[in-house]
Amino acid sequence: MENDRLDPWGETSVDNYQRLHAEFGIERMDSVLPRFKNPSLHMRRGIDFGQRDLGRILDAIDNNKPFAVMSGIKPSGIFHLGTKMTADDMIYFQSLSKKATVFYAIADVEAYNDNGLSLQDSSKIAVQNVADILALGLDPERAVVYKQSQEIRVMRLATVFSAGVTNNMLRAIYGERQVGLYLSALIQAGDILMPQLPEFGGPKPVVVPVGADQDPHIRLSRDLANSFQKDFGFIPPSSIYHKLIKSLDGATKMSKRSSTSTFYLNEDPASAARKVMSGFTGGRPTVEEQRRIGGEADKCPIYDLYLFHFAMEDEYAKRVYDECYGGVRTCGDCKKELATLVKRYLEEHQKKRESLMKDAEELLEKSRKTLDSMAR
Amino acid sequence: MENDRLDPWGETSVDNYQRLHAEFGIERMDSVLPRFKNPSLHMRRGIDFGQRDLGRILDAIDNNKPFAVMSGIKPSGIFHLGTKMTADDMIYFQSLSKKATVFYAIADVEAYNDNGLSLQDSSKIAVQNVADILALGLDPERAVVYKQSQEIRVMRLATVFSAGVTNNMLRAIYGERQVGLYLSALIQAGDILMPQLPEFGGPKPVVVPVGADQDPHIRLSRDLANSFQKDFGFIPPSSIYHKLIKSLDGATKMSKRSSTSTFYLNEDPASAARKVMSGFTGGRPTVEEQRRIGGEADKCPIYDLYLFHFAMEDEYAKRVYDECYGGVRTCGDCKKELATLVKRYLEEHQKKRESLMKDAEELLEKSRKTLDSMAR
Repeated sequence: MENDRLDPWGETSVDNYQRLHAEFGIERMDSVLPRFKNPSLHMRRGIDFGQRDLGRILDAIDNNKPFAVMSGIKPSGIFHLGTKMTADDMIYFQSLSKKATVFYAIADVEAYNDNGLSLQDSSKIAVQNVADILALGLDPERAVVYKQSQEIRVMRLATVFSAGVTNNMLRAIYGERQVGLYLSALIQAGDILMPQLPEFGGPKPVVVPVGADQDPHIRLSRDLANSFQKDFGFIPPSSIYHKLIKSLDGATKMSKRSSTSTFYLNEDPASAARKVMSGFTGGRPTVEEQRRIGGEADKCPIYDLYLFHFAMEDEYAKRVYDECYGGVRTCGDCKKELATLVKRYLEEHQKKRESLMKDAEELLEKSRKTLDSMAR
Repeated sequence: MENDRLDPWGETSVDNYQRLHAEFGIERMDSVLPRFKNPSLHMRRGIDFGQRDLGRILDAIDNNKPFAVMSGIKPSGIFHLGTKMTADDMIYFQSLSKKATVFYAIADVEAYNDNGLSLQDSSKIAVQNVADILALGLDPERAVVYKQSQEIRVMRLATVFSAGVTNNMLRAIYGERQVGLYLSALIQAGDILMPQLPEFGGPKPVVVPVGADQDPHIRLSRDLANSFQKDFGFIPPSSIYHKLIKSLDGATKMSKRSSTSTFYLNEDPASAARKVMSGFTGGRPTVEEQRRIGGEADKCPIYDLYLFHFAMEDEYAKRVYDECYGGVRTCGDCKKELATLVKRYLEEHQKKRESLMKDAEELLEKSRKTLDSMAR
């Protein structure tokens, strides 16, 4: 966070989630959490810490009305643990109702602009990304997956929106930026609002699961939904925010660009296990001290990995936490235990993903055909 | 012109074309004119006053190599006389070689943004615009006509370009503008550079005929062609500039938005004739004075109409000019003569256009199918 602004393009950390409620009006989960019959792992563990208008999605679920779940990925790399969090949230919301449709944007134009990745290379990675999300549990029957570079509706919305915003509005949300980043923001607003176009059944609630740092895009989309209400009938999109996982190398934010900060879902399981073993922890300088006063799980990226991803049972996560603070668990043992979990998880995931590559290609192709056949 | 900048979105006049050579580096026609075997009406009469790299197009013609002719129309209104000038230039360049392909962009997204025209309404006007240009002589066999709202390649290029420009570059060309106008400029650069994409045969010379006030878009496109040379192999586009016709009501620039400043190609011929009769002239306060010292054809929008559009023979245009300055011709008679020409022209044009409406629809449809079937 910088100059009291969240930076969706930065590598900044969010160290105080409380501030986000007060300063940006992100609502707490309290008011909506009791309405979820089977709250997700992220919800139960406080990883999903905030929301905007999530009640609208719960209403749709309760009344068996259609809604959309929207998010995207920049195919500049393979799924890593941050991407997995958003994917997990999407899959969770898709599972809550037969009337939920997932819209999944592959931001290949952004990957070209930010990372110099050619559209052809993006295309190859995109298939792997889709196989990843299928392996995580996405139901392809109620999913539309598209590449930004091929979806004229998104680009058209971005252009239309560009005429409805002022530089001052954009500066207030994002700070002074180059026009390329402003356009990138408008394209994301296009992604978020596209599910409400007539060809997709018209205005409907949409939930966007994102990391806390992406809230500026949500605010812009909500502002635009209001500004263009008259022409499009948009309902302001809802959102749910997850905390950002701590970087394995002790850096401030889990970043796709640093290979030591995280591991990838397609990474050699042994390599991922090694990264865990050499990871930064919340431990004390000596084992003796750790035994005496306990470790600090709240500051520990290794504990985050248990909490966010690899301790599937809440009880287990709680036990790791308590044992850490109680001085029962030392960092060495804790890492070894996690390394085994990670290795096993990756082996299974990669097997599953491999078997789903053809399904991924089919989903991309089916979506493309559906989108192309619709009135434009 | 304002703050030493040309304003492509303004209603400003260009009063001194000489300045454009010195200040913006627009080259004179002298060096290339002798190479045209049959110079166009605009060229012969000095209406086309400048160019950039037009020699490249002449080389392509001489060597029987492919080149493109690119321009567009915002379908916020029917063809008027300014639009006709660009169309005449496009048709002229298309006629110079069997290897010339016209790319004609219908800027419906801009029409929505600037004029609030729905895409459906644009679509109806677009058919009429295309019928107009067919009636003016476009060969549909070597023409690609597309709506910006449907052409993902243009939008994709605009996005890619947005990441390669800085706000300072855009400010230097356009002044401080809202992001919507910057994006609109980048989209126009996308239009101009699209003919060089691989699916259209790759890099090639492109000539863009424009009014003098549109030079900023040409400069931006040429800068971008250089910046993205490595990835796309772009050849900087060539351009040819025509003078702006004087407004019939004496205002500074012929504008689409003022109904008294011009007439439309679909206008009731009697109404157009009436506009001519009540038009502003370069005449003297009294007939007596006019007889004595002559009129001022160079300041006269009525003379411009002869020169730019309705005196088909050079001899005739010259005679009108000489008779005006010689005091032989009075404004009343001069207008009556023009009104008759205009009425006859519109009647014929409208008959031709009516008979070409179906061809226009077919051209739009054929282009759409061709573009959709190409690799994206």
